[in-house]
Parts: sequence; structure tokens; C-alpha cells
Amino acid sequence: MSLPQLIMLPGPTNVPARVYAAMCKPMINHRGPEFHELHSRVLENAKKVFQTENDLFVLTSSGTGGVECAASNFLLPGEKILVPVGGTFGERLADAFRTYGADVIPIEVKMGSTPTANQIKEVLKRERDAKAVAVVYNETSTGTTVRDLRQIGEVTKEAGALFIVDAISVLGGDDLPVDKWGVDVCITASQKCLATPPGLALISVSRDAWKLAERAKPRTEYFSLTKCKKFRDEKMETPFTPAVSLFFALDEALQMILETGLERWIGRHKKAGSAYYEAFGRMGLNFFAEEGSRSNVVIAINMPTGIAAKSLRDRLRTRYGVVVAGGFGALKDSIFRIGNMGVVTPREVVTTVSAVGAALDELGFRGHAGEGLNAAIRLISDL
Amino acid sequence: MSLPQLIMLPGPTNVPARVYAAMCKPMINHRGPEFHELHSRVLENAKKVFQTENDLFVLTSSGTGGVECAASNFLLPGEKILVPVGGTFGERLADAFRTYGADVIPIEVKMGSTPTANQIKEVLKRERDAKAVAVVYNETSTGTTVRDLRQIGEVTKEAGALFIVDAISVLGGDDLPVDKWGVDVCITASQKCLATPPGLALISVSRDAWKLAERAKPRTEYFSLTKCKKFRDEKMETPFTPAVSLFFALDEALQMILETGLERWIGRHKKAGSAYYEAFGRMGLNFFAEEGSRSNVVIAINMPTGIAAKSLRDRLRTRYGVVVAGGFGALKDSIFRIGNMGVVTPREVVTTVSAVGAALDELGFRGHAGEGLNAAIRLISDL
Repeated sequence: MSLPQLIMLPGPTNVPARVYAAMCKPMINHRGPEFHELHSRVLENAKKVFQTENDLFVLTSSGTGGVECAASNFLLPGEKILVPVGGTFGERLADAFRTYGADVIPIEVKMGSTPTANQIKEVLKRERDAKAVAVVYNETSTGTTVRDLRQIGEVTKEAGALFIVDAISVLGGDDLPVDKWGVDVCITASQKCLATPPGLALISVSRDAWKLAERAKPRTEYFSLTKCKKFRDEKMETPFTPAVSLFFALDEALQMILETGLERWIGRHKKAGSAYYEAFGRMGLNFFAEEGSRSNVVIAINMPTGIAAKSLRDRLRTRYGVVVAGGFGALKDSIFRIGNMGVVTPREVVTTVSAVGAALDELGFRGHAGEGLNAAIRLISDL
Repeated sequence: MSLPQLIMLPGPTNVPARVYAAMCKPMINHRGPEFHELHSRVLENAKKVFQTENDLFVLTSSGTGGVECAASNFLLPGEKILVPVGGTFGERLADAFRTYGADVIPIEVKMGSTPTANQIKEVLKRERDAKAVAVVYNETSTGTTVRDLRQIGEVTKEAGALFIVDAISVLGGDDLPVDKWGVDVCITASQKCLATPPGLALISVSRDAWKLAERAKPRTEYFSLTKCKKFRDEKMETPFTPAVSLFFALDEALQMILETGLERWIGRHKKAGSAYYEAFGRMGLNFFAEEGSRSNVVIAINMPTGIAAKSLRDRLRTRYGVVVAGGFGALKDSIFRIGNMGVVTPREVVTTVSAVGAALDELGFRGHAGEGLNAAIRLISDL
């Protein structure tokens, strides 16, 4: 029997019915008054969720398009940027800047751990001409979140460098007051903690970032922020046809987040995150991420010896209708990852915890599924 | 009273209910078997609509992203490309190649007319080292279609150059057998004659095009065709998270087109196109495009003296719920444009013809609305 699927991936995530309903509103003219109103409200509400008064743009692309936008607009070829790399998305961020000719200084981070402000400070002392520091806030491939992000922002700004944060998988799921933490450029995507289908990237741009952007003509048309700004300022439009239906969906999702209250929306991710760690710990499982670097929104779990991630994932999908992710690259079969993003209710937590417990039991891992569930239940009492 | 809107724009266009329904299928893992199956079927059916056996990729971007993909993958900086320019989208195509460093030789085309094979042949004789010719098949800004496209392909291939066609606003709405006409790279978008919401671009790539693409490392990550090919070949996936819901929608739309039959689907656009020209001609209106260059899918109509396009458009929208487009740039207020794309039934034709007739009458243009309607009715009898 084909089960309806609970998508517990680190993106895309489950989409609430009201967001789907909004997505199917009848088509409108992307150069007419209905779009102007929609676009204006989306930008206003997105800024509240970003906690920023900076400019903000919505791009019709995946989150990686947002990264490409950052990589192509701010630095001139040959300019130096520091990028901590401790996983697939750190590598992708570094690659994007390399592609556009930046002199990328990678800062090696042990997989499962995260960069510290001291580490960045040391490198900034050595690389005095660094124009920017770009950090992946939540490294989806390893289930880590940079707990020192605010402090990294401080040392970056002290060095006079631009602070670029790839928050694709986490904005809305953990603390990230963009202005308060001095983030010049913040990137996220629709299909993670914003509970919208994939296809839109969001990027905020500070005054300092504009100063760098204005130095040269854009090296891309599609991701040109100057064009985005011009069309927004003159007509509240986008330079090229936007994914109108996804704008409708994002509009509804942002309203839902603000009705819930941003703090409460983020808080749900934190509570559910704690419940997952506690539950799986009690079951006798170990986590890939070091304790001080663990992500609320991506729980990366080491496979028990002798069980392949693929067997567990297939079983979860076909018997329990729960879809989780494996690892990237070398970690493909040695970890599995649970996304705790967007739609976060007691139902997601207990279903996922109990299904993982049951499936592992079936595969011969005699853990303590029930104890895990009991632990989760205690921590979600006020979710 | 707020009317439901009939979107008679040159994109986005009206979306059939079954396409909306498909768009709201529950989210799936873009790295799982359900997506592999969906993606594979979309590519297979899109190739049928392109009439090609070349590689084909679906990008999460607007059509302009597809143009950027072409501009960034095939030519090395300094290489020569001929681009006929007779409107906004010809200009945009030229700009995209310029942004990526190509030596663009623009071929000036009078607005409202289209380039001929002889014209291109002459320039190719002079510019013997031209690596490519890129043509906008349907210039949306002026309502023209290049009737010499097949012959332009022949002279381009004879010169050993790559033939790139921007068919964004027309593929599915007029003849374009990609392989038969020797099109090496063909670009279209979801929100035009494919009757899908905006947010996806489609691009086909011939063997000759691959030969050029393989010469250099990509200058973009997001639009790298090498990456697209690798992910498709290895896993039937996309390199970055695709707009899954829009893939569902496009899948349904392509099935609908193939159920209808491609020839019949295109034929509807042709018949309705003729009906519009005949009807508006009978009303005493004149067209912006020259007779031999007129587009089936974008009808560009000169405003009668003394009436601004904006007045007509506002009236059509608010009193009749019919949304049409104005002109671009200098033509902003002197023409209006009707999109005849995707959902093309007798209803769209009679509603649009009669609403335009009525609104113009209200604005003081004593045309012959009824005669126009009669003419349209005769031409859509077998639509």
C-alpha cells in the first residue's frame, strides 16, 4: 500500500494545506497592481522574519541561486574572502566564490564541528586585506549550527570585512537577528524553515554590501542585484518573470509565521530539536555533530554498526511513510539525517521518533524505542 | 465588484485546473525515487514537444535564466556571435552574451519586422569566425515571429556556426521542430504556450553545442550544463533543489499537450491567432507587426489615435476582467498586446475580442465590434 509521506528531510519539507491553497490562486499579471501588492507584502513580512531593515529580494531560484547571487555581486575578481569549510555546503559556498574569481581562503573545519570566532579572528589577522567572510550558519550535510555566529560577525566587522551568511536551511528555525548580529548579506530559501515549496531564494543586502556591489558592473544578468533594486524601487516588480505561484505560497507562509509569532515559530524548532536529541540518545544512538555544534533543524545520526542507512531509509519510507535523508559523499551510508523544519508539531516528532525506533528494531538494532518516545513526549508537552 | 481575471498576457498565462491540481501534489524528496520517475517523464515528454532527441534540461528559473544558461555555457570570452535585435528580447539576448564576454555582432532589425536568412547570410560572409547565431524566434515586445527561422538555421549551419534559438514565448504555439530545423540550443519557459505557472526554463543541447560547452570550465555554478548532465546521467536528479511543485505542474501540462496531440495544440494557436488578426482588422485596428512577420501568439495592436493603452487596459481589467499587456519602453502607451498562449479555446477568443471591442467603443473609438466578433466566430468554428 502506498502511504502518504511525511517528508522529514532537511528540505524540501512538508507544506501546510493553507500554503498549498494559496499557491493555487488564479494567475495574475506580474507587471500589474495585484503583483505589486503581493510583492510588497512579501518583502515587508520577509524582513520581519529576517529581523532586518536592510534591502531584501526574492529570487526565482533554489537557495544555491541565492549563493550565486552573493558570489557574483559583491567581490571583484582576485579579492579575498574567508570561507570556513566543514561540509558539502561550505564547499559549495567556497566554489561559488571561486567560480566568480574571488581569492577564496578556505578555513578547514573538522566535520561535525563548527568554526569559532577565535579561529576566524586569527585568520583575519593574517589576511588583512580580506574583503569578506562567508559562513554557512547551518551545515546541512553534518547537522551542525555555528553557535559562535554572532561573535564571528563581530570579529568580521572589526576587521572591516563584509559578513555573508548562508542561512538557507535554518532561517526561521533558529536565532538569526540579521541586523543585531551584523549580517550584511543573508541568504535563505523557501523550502526549509519557511514551510513553502522549493523554487525561491531570499537575500538581504546591507548598506556596506551595496557599497561593494556598486563598484563594478554585474557579472550575471539573472542574479544582478542592481537590476532587482531598480525594478523594485521603480515599480515593485522583479526584473524577470517571477514564479508567481510560489510568491503566493511564500506570502501565505510568512503570514502564518508572523501570526504564530516569530519567537514561537523558532522556539518550536528548538523544542522539537531537543526532543529528537534526547529521544535518539535514549535509544542508544549517537550523533554525528559534536555536542556544542548540534543543529536544531538537521539531526544527523550515526548508523548503528552493521546497518546501512539505505536499509533504514527504505524501510522508513515504505513501511512507515516517513522520508529521511542519508549522508552526502563519504557519509552516504554511515549517517542518516532528519529535517526538523517548517511544519513542526508534536505529530512530526512522535511519528518520526517511533518510526525510527521501530524500523531500527526490525533491522536488528535492539535499542530502546519506547524509552526514546517517552523522553520525546516529555519535551514536547508545550510544543 | 472584483472579477475573476482572464489573463490574456504574453505570459504568464491562464493555468488549467488540472495543472493547478497537479501542482499541489504532496511534497516529495527531490533525491528519491518519486522524483526520479517524475523528472524522467518530464524530460521525455518535453523532448516530444521540442521534437528533439537532443539532451534537454529543466532549470528552476524564469526564461531569462535559460538565456543566461545559453550565454554562459557555449562561448568563450571574445568569441563572436550574431544576434538580430528588433525589440526588447533581442536586446536582452545580446546583453546576456555580452555579460559573459562574447563579442556580440548585433544585426539591426526594424521594429515590427524580422530578420531574413539572406540578411544573416550576408553578415556571416563578412564575419567568418562567428561561432554562433542566436535568434529570438518570437519577439514578444513587437508581436513578431521569424518566418525564416528554418532557413536561418540552414545558413548558420552552412557557416559552421551554432544555432541558438530563444523560443521562450512561442514553443508549443507555433512550428518549431528543433532537430529538423537544426536548432542546436533551444530555450523555452513554463509560463507561455506550455500552460504552466512561471518558474521553470527548458533548454535543449545538441552534440555540436556540447562540443563548445566542453571547452572550458563553466562560468556559473547555478546554470552549469555540465553539472545538470552529470546529475541527470548519474541519478536522474538536478544539481540543486528543483521547484518540485512546478515540476508536478509541468508534468501534467506536458501530458495534456501530448494527449491533445502536439500538432493540434499548435494548430489551436494558429487558428486563434488568425481569428484575432481578422477580428481586430475588421474593427478597424492596425497591427504593429508587418504582415509577413506577425506572431500567432502575441498580437500587438496599435492604439487608435487619441486613446492611451493604459486607459484601455485599465478598463478591460476592471470592467471586463480581461488582462492584456501594454508596450515596452518607447511603445509603452502606443500599442497593446494580447497573449494567445497555452489555454486557447473559443472562450478566450470571443471574450477577448468582444471585451476589446466594447472597451474601445466606450473610449470613443467607434469601430465595428460586432463585425470583428462575427469574423472571429467564423475562424474558430473548428477550434
